Amino acid sequence: MNYPRTIKDLIECFKKLPGIGEKTAERLALSTLEIDSEVLDLFSETLKNVKTKIKRCNKCNNLSEEDLCEICKMTNRDVNTICVVEDVKNVMIFEKVGTYRGLYHVLDGLISPLDGINPSDINISSLIERIKKEDIKEIILALKPSIEGETTSLYISKLLEKEDVKITKIAHGIPIGVDMEYIDTLTLEMALEDRKSVS
Amino acid sequence: MNYPRTIKDLIECFKKLPGIGEKTAERLALSTLEIDSEVLDLFSETLKNVKTKIKRCNKCNNLSEEDLCEICKMTNRDVNTICVVEDVKNVMIFEKVGTYRGLYHVLDGLISPLDGINPSDINISSLIERIKKEDIKEIILALKPSIEGETTSLYISKLLEKEDVKITKIAHGIPIGVDMEYIDTLTLEMALEDRKSVS
Repeated sequence: MNYPRTIKDLIECFKKLPGIGEKTAERLALSTLEIDSEVLDLFSETLKNVKTKIKRCNKCNNLSEEDLCEICKMTNRDVNTICVVEDVKNVMIFEKVGTYRGLYHVLDGLISPLDGINPSDINISSLIERIKKEDIKEIILALKPSIEGETTSLYISKLLEKEDVKITKIAHGIPIGVDMEYIDTLTLEMALEDRKSVS
Repeated sequence: MNYPRTIKDLIECFKKLPGIGEKTAERLALSTLEIDSEVLDLFSETLKNVKTKIKRCNKCNNLSEEDLCEICKMTNRDVNTICVVEDVKNVMIFEKVGTYRGLYHVLDGLISPLDGINPSDINISSLIERIKKEDIKEIILALKPSIEGETTSLYISKLLEKEDVKITKIAHGIPIGVDMEYIDTLTLEMALEDRKSVS
C-alpha cells in the first residue's frame, strides 16, 4: 500500500526540486489538497509554460519573456555602465537596492577549473562583444569574494586590458551592523587594505 | 524591475505551500528552468488534477482515487481490527512498518478545545458507526502522546465503553537505539509505569 497515484506523482515531482527530500516532498504534496483551486490552476499553468515563456535577454542574458529584458528596454538607464553578475538572482538583488542605474551582464556561473567550469562555459565572450559594440565606459565586477569570483574577475580584467574601458570591482569589507569581533580575518584584511581617506 | 511575469507567478504559487518563504520560493521557481520538460508537464498535470482526483475513502477516510481506498479493498486484511490514526501520513507510517494487517480509521485531527477543535470536527462519529455496523473486535488507538492525543484517546474510549469491543493503545516508552540519558522524564515515567514482566 502506498499513496494514490496522483499523490505519488506529486511527491516525485517535488523531489526533483533542489533541497526537497522525501519527507518535505510528502508534506508539500499533501498540502496541495488544502490549497485553493485557483492557485493550483495558476501553479499548473505556469509550470507548464515556464520553459517556453522564459527566455534569456539577447543583450545581457537576464531572464525575459521577450528578446530584450525589462532593464535593457528601459530608456532611463545609464547605457555606458555594465554591472557583471554571477546569476539572475544577483540582478534582482541590485535592483532591490535601487541605486544602480546602469545595465547588467549575467555570466551564469563563475570560472572554476576544479568543477570543470572554464571561461568558455560562462557568458564572457558575449560581454567582450558588448564592450566592443556598445559605448561602454565602465565595467563593474560584482562577483562574490570567493576563489572562483576572484579568478573570474581577474580573467575578465585581463581580457579587457587593452580596451578603453574603466574596470572597477565592488568593495569588500565590514558589512553594516555587524559586531567587529565576528568578522573573519580575511574580510578584516581586505577592509584594511581597501581603507579610504576620511578627510 | 522585477522577474518576468511567469517567474513572479511561480514564486507566488510556491509561497502558498507550507514552510516556503520568499527566498526559498524564488530559488524553487528559478530551479524549474533547469528541470526536464517531461517532469514539468507531469508536475503541471498532477497539480491541476489533484483536488478532483483525490477523494477520501468512504469507509476509513484515507486518501483514495476511488470510493474505497486500497487498504479497505484488500482481501487479505484483518477486518476485525481498526487502528485509529490522526492523519493520512500516519497510515503510511504504519504501512511502512508492514506488520499491521488490520484496517485504519483516519480522524483528520485531534480534539483540541484551545484551538477550537471539538469532537464533532474530527471523524469520530463515523468511527462509532463503523464499530456498530462492521464486525470490529479491537480498536487500537495510535495517537501521539500529547495532551490532544490523550484527550482524543480518552474521549473515544469513553464513547465505546458500552460497546463489545476491545480498546488498546500503542505503547509509549523508550525508543530503540536511544541513549537513556537523553530521554525526558515523562517518557521515563511512562516506560516505568508500562513495564512488563520478562520471565
